[in-house]
Amino acid sequence: MNGRLGLDQLGLSAGKKTRLHRILYQHGLQNGTALFLPYDQGLEHGPRDFFANPDAGDPKYIIGLALEGGFNGIAIQIGLAEKDYAGEVPLVLKLNGKTDIPSTIDPLSPVNATVDDAVRLGADAVGYTLYVGTPAQEHDFAQYLCVRRDAQRLGMPLIVWAYPRGSAIDGKGGKDSFYAVDYAARTASELGADVVKVNFPHPDKQFDVPGPYQSEFSAQQAIDAVVRSANRTLLLVSGGERAGDEAMLDKARQSMEAGATGLIFGRNIWQRPRDESLRFVAALKEILAKYPSA
Amino acid sequence: MNGRLGLDQLGLSAGKKTRLHRILYQHGLQNGTALFLPYDQGLEHGPRDFFANPDAGDPKYIIGLALEGGFNGIAIQIGLAEKDYAGEVPLVLKLNGKTDIPSTIDPLSPVNATVDDAVRLGADAVGYTLYVGTPAQEHDFAQYLCVRRDAQRLGMPLIVWAYPRGSAIDGKGGKDSFYAVDYAARTASELGADVVKVNFPHPDKQFDVPGPYQSEFSAQQAIDAVVRSANRTLLLVSGGERAGDEAMLDKARQSMEAGATGLIFGRNIWQRPRDESLRFVAALKEILAKYPSA
Amino acid sequence: MNGRLGLDQLGLSAGKKTRLHRILYQHGLQNGTALFLPYDQGLEHGPRDFFANPDAGDPKYIIGLALEGGFNGIAIQIGLAEKDYAGEVPLVLKLNGKTDIPSTIDPLSPVNATVDDAVRLGADAVGYTLYVGTPAQEHDFAQYLCVRRDAQRLGMPLIVWAYPRGSAIDGKGGKDSFYAVDYAARTASELGADVVKVNFPHPDKQFDVPGPYQSEFSAQQAIDAVVRSANRTLLLVSGGERAGDEAMLDKARQSMEAGATGLIFGRNIWQRPRDESLRFVAALKEILAKYPSA
Amino acid sequence: MNGRLGLDQLGLSAGKKTRLHRILYQHGLQNGTALFLPYDQGLEHGPRDFFANPDAGDPKYIIGLALEGGFNGIAIQIGLAEKDYAGEVPLVLKLNGKTDIPSTIDPLSPVNATVDDAVRLGADAVGYTLYVGTPAQEHDFAQYLCVRRDAQRLGMPLIVWAYPRGSAIDGKGGKDSFYAVDYAARTASELGADVVKVNFPHPDKQFDVPGPYQSEFSAQQAIDAVVRSANRTLLLVSGGERAGDEAMLDKARQSMEAGATGLIFGRNIWQRPRDESLRFVAALKEILAKYPSA
Amino acid sequence: MNGRLGLDQLGLSAGKKTRLHRILYQHGLQNGTALFLPYDQGLEHGPRDFFANPDAGDPKYIIGLALEGGFNGIAIQIGLAEKDYAGEVPLVLKLNGKTDIPSTIDPLSPVNATVDDAVRLGADAVGYTLYVGTPAQEHDFAQYLCVRRDAQRLGMPLIVWAYPRGSAIDGKGGKDSFYAVDYAARTASELGADVVKVNFPHPDKQFDVPGPYQSEFSAQQAIDAVVRSANRTLLLVSGGERAGDEAMLDKARQSMEAGATGLIFGRNIWQRPRDESLRFVAALKEILAKYPSA
Repeated sequence: MNGRLGLDQLGLSAGKKTRLHRILYQHGLQNGTALFLPYDQGLEHGPRDFFANPDAGDPKYIIGLALEGGFNGIAIQIGLAEKDYAGEVPLVLKLNGKTDIPSTIDPLSPVNATVDDAVRLGADAVGYTLYVGTPAQEHDFAQYLCVRRDAQRLGMPLIVWAYPRGSAIDGKGGKDSFYAVDYAARTASELGADVVKVNFPHPDKQFDVPGPYQSEFSAQQAIDAVVRSANRTLLLVSGGERAGDEAMLDKARQSMEAGATGLIFGRNIWQRPRDESLRFVAALKEILAKYPSA
Repeated sequence: MNGRLGLDQLGLSAGKKTRLHRILYQHGLQNGTALFLPYDQGLEHGPRDFFANPDAGDPKYIIGLALEGGFNGIAIQIGLAEKDYAGEVPLVLKLNGKTDIPSTIDPLSPVNATVDDAVRLGADAVGYTLYVGTPAQEHDFAQYLCVRRDAQRLGMPLIVWAYPRGSAIDGKGGKDSFYAVDYAARTASELGADVVKVNFPHPDKQFDVPGPYQSEFSAQQAIDAVVRSANRTLLLVSGGERAGDEAMLDKARQSMEAGATGLIFGRNIWQRPRDESLRFVAALKEILAKYPSA
Repeated sequence: MNGRLGLDQLGLSAGKKTRLHRILYQHGLQNGTALFLPYDQGLEHGPRDFFANPDAGDPKYIIGLALEGGFNGIAIQIGLAEKDYAGEVPLVLKLNGKTDIPSTIDPLSPVNATVDDAVRLGADAVGYTLYVGTPAQEHDFAQYLCVRRDAQRLGMPLIVWAYPRGSAIDGKGGKDSFYAVDYAARTASELGADVVKVNFPHPDKQFDVPGPYQSEFSAQQAIDAVVRSANRTLLLVSGGERAGDEAMLDKARQSMEAGATGLIFGRNIWQRPRDESLRFVAALKEILAKYPSA
Repeated sequence: MNGRLGLDQLGLSAGKKTRLHRILYQHGLQNGTALFLPYDQGLEHGPRDFFANPDAGDPKYIIGLALEGGFNGIAIQIGLAEKDYAGEVPLVLKLNGKTDIPSTIDPLSPVNATVDDAVRLGADAVGYTLYVGTPAQEHDFAQYLCVRRDAQRLGMPLIVWAYPRGSAIDGKGGKDSFYAVDYAARTASELGADVVKVNFPHPDKQFDVPGPYQSEFSAQQAIDAVVRSANRTLLLVSGGERAGDEAMLDKARQSMEAGATGLIFGRNIWQRPRDESLRFVAALKEILAKYPSA
Repeated sequence: MNGRLGLDQLGLSAGKKTRLHRILYQHGLQNGTALFLPYDQGLEHGPRDFFANPDAGDPKYIIGLALEGGFNGIAIQIGLAEKDYAGEVPLVLKLNGKTDIPSTIDPLSPVNATVDDAVRLGADAVGYTLYVGTPAQEHDFAQYLCVRRDAQRLGMPLIVWAYPRGSAIDGKGGKDSFYAVDYAARTASELGADVVKVNFPHPDKQFDVPGPYQSEFSAQQAIDAVVRSANRTLLLVSGGERAGDEAMLDKARQSMEAGATGLIFGRNIWQRPRDESLRFVAALKEILAKYPSA
């Protein structure tokens, strides 16, 4: 287990510290951990994600869920933020995104909103998807630079969705491999993210990875290493596609044990009836409660 | 049937609300519904669209038709707005467009006018064609971001022509499939459109679509779902190529029943003699009259 | 025959109207018609165009010809405007151009001067080549937008060289087909040109064109239609490669009969000895004299 | 022989005239002719060009040579101008350049310094390499436009290295053909160069050139034509790769006879011992002395 | 052996001189030599570089090592500079970088931070990786131009990582060949670097290089030539992948003998236990102590 990071250890400007403090210590469990509700799937996957629970297609339903579940924040695109959000829970304005219709080989997630939009809407953080490992990194880094600079200028915390992607990743163990997730966490940290969101690393799913990753690692060892690679960047583990509850709770426990700051679970929350959602949230919060940071 | 949206539920700034109010409550039936006349086919298809009714090649004829037919607005490109428009009916300045001469695989619609042009010309809204699903979405979103920001800054309502296009769409059911239209409506909403224009969805025309869309759906179920996916974005259904009147009126009824705000019909209106055009308009307005919003 | 357009019917700003008035009513025949001398072939084709009449390689010779022939203006690139022009006749500063050395499949004509340059040099109009129908329209429209906006801001008339080009045009009847020229004229009008320059349309040279263009049309019917498609945009017919005098005079008559504002003839003028040039100019002006506009 | 151009015939702004006057009448032979020393080969070819005379790798040696040889100016890149230049002879700051490591098919020479840098460093002119005939002309012209505008704004003479290049040139007679050099000279002139640098044209080295160039031409006829095509743009003939002295002196004589303003010789000067360099320079200046301009 | 450069011979602005003076004469051996610790491998190679010595994954460990080892500076990316650096040793903010996940054929290193960031963070220099020889030089030079201009404006020394790369380099002797390193050093110098970082040149590893490089050269002759090519640009030799200590010390001696200003060694330092690191540093400093510059 790595040491848990306090907000004073992150080199944050006053505005960023203020806003992260609001998210981490004035919402959710108010203990420095975080549970975020991401809701950009309407753009990333289309309405098909809402067929399992049609209520979930309505942003008002989701915001209600975040409020009742006591989340630390929701992450949505500009359109929903503009029309459906009214300050109920902290807002993470997602600044880029794409549809999954065209080929996702070597993707880039184009920006559709700005940090100024986030300020105007009263957001407490912005989110940026960085596809680590694609040849499009040239354009991605250029886009990212503008976002990082604006976030710095406006004191807005920057959460990087650090997603390994692209043909080279596919050929080096895949996007959930320990190697890929570890590299993605480090990349976000080197590039100046305040918070990084990663998928849970799978040491058993990789192949053709660089030598050092070819030893045997347990899941706990992998997530420990990823948290270390993220260095003084707060780390959130995402839920990904809906899976069995016990598996998800195990991941959550291992992540928090490794020193993660929290979780960002979407489809695993809202692709089920409301009561079931809230019961699952309660189980997650029970885990988070065990890992307060001063 | 979905609930009908009022202007207060859309998160609109003062300027956008004022201009949409002028369009929806001071023109046409003045009951919150809308009938728009799009007239950008001279650019999109070339003069060939005017051979069926040569009068239609003259913008003055079209503006006269919009005036006599009691439309809520016309949508034209900068050249016609500059030269032929004189404030007769509300103006939707179309900001982008392209010829159909080169291949339309993976298209992008380049911007040829700005929101500042729209303000200068006294427009009450701007229109932007977003080709949802093409690999060019990287450039499209970048262009769109500028338009959306300017529209926000200047209080100008933004109508997104949300058109599924590109090779991936062709391989996933086609541009009129329920899947494609549903995704396009949601994309416009997520990206912050105030109004979205879609084609009528065809649940029976699709193939190879994602699982949730492979069930049986009626046309009414499909358009209901699309209106829901558009969320708090006003929805207009377009007429597309000229077709039989009864089929068009059926589409119109189903759309309004589903909660659409109105219709945007071009070639179905002006590719026939003037009297016939006006009779068809009257039939459409009879339908719209049944769906007032407060 | 279409009605002849007056300057008050074009939606022109004060500056544009003033400058067009100077060109059309204070130079040439001073009757609202126009005869322009284009001289950008040194860039577009290279010095080879001057071998037929070596004097023509010297811009001073050309300017002298324009002056003695009583032209309404000359169209040249920035280099010649800067070095050789001294206000003798109205200047149309051509803002873009290219060499014909690399392949001309799907061309783009890059900008090499600005509307500010035109103002600085005392020009009365600017010229922009728009290659209608190429896949490069995305870049072309973006370039064009800047030029159109600057021209609007500075009150400078914008003459669009509307040239159908590219592989798709080659596959749909070719660049001189009625279909292609008609579409090009409309495109310039829709995009906000004040004046459009087209080649004479050939209804007999086309193949594989869209249905409406597959009927029989006379040359007069074709040029009539093109003038109508140009709508409230003044139309100039260009001479193109040097051809027989009688054929050229026929084109000129048919164009003026159709409602064109004038002619823009280069190589047909200066690729011959000076006296012969002036005799040919006199014949053209005899035609123009018959089509005054009030 | 063409007439020799005076500075008053070039349409120059005050600042450009002042700086060119300093170069042409206050340095070198002070008779309106010019002998320039280009020294950008360290970037364009790498240090290999210095192996023949290792001293030549040191910019201080070259500047000393320019001073002792009585050159009108040296042309160097920003790095050497910043570090090695101290005002000894007029400075032509070369604004773009590239290594010759990657393929030179269809090249572009990217900008690495600005006209503002030139002003800051006390330069009397700037140099820009334009690769005439490559498909990259779209980017080249865009880059060039910025340079030309800045040079205009700051009164800085612009010398264009007009180099025919690219696969189309290779297929039309090659980069030293009369056709290619003639077109390149005209292009620079049309685009607003104040001075153009060309290679000596070879009427005997071309093949597959356009018709007018297929006649028999002497070297003198070719260089005469090139000077005419350059019009009111001062023309410099470059030396290119090192060759026999007599051949170089012949080229120099023919160029000056044709009306060129001067010569720009690099490797032919400094790829030999210092004394030999100065003797060759003396021979060149003997030629230049015969062609004073008032 | 070449002469050793003093700070007064480099054409430096006041700010650049001040900051380089601080690095070279107030840190490390304070004798004008330099030993830098580069630590951007977390981005360039990923966390795999830290497996040999897990402590090295923590920037605080590295900064401690730099402090105890008496380095002249550390080179890190913006994220670590923002979060982990507190002024302990001079900071070289690395402004660009990339992951090594996608193909490294013809690479470009995209910018992720600015010179303004460097000023804000109290840095004493900025670092830029220039991949000499790739077709991407067009984009690279454009990026570089902005960095160089900003560095000039803000008085910030610019250290160029001059790395030969790309398919053409692979075909001309490889990235460590004498030819490639020599060209890279000269390119950085021509483009205005204040300091250039190169790999040690290998005259014995090259093939298919240009003629002048095909003679026999000793390692000392090669590094001598490279220092000469760098001209009045301070030169640092990098360590590259970890290798045997004696080989590294030999390289260090030869480099200093040739006139290099110093060394920049990363993995050879920190990919071993702390004590061993410090012993190796001591050996390097023993060499540097022999080459003071006034």
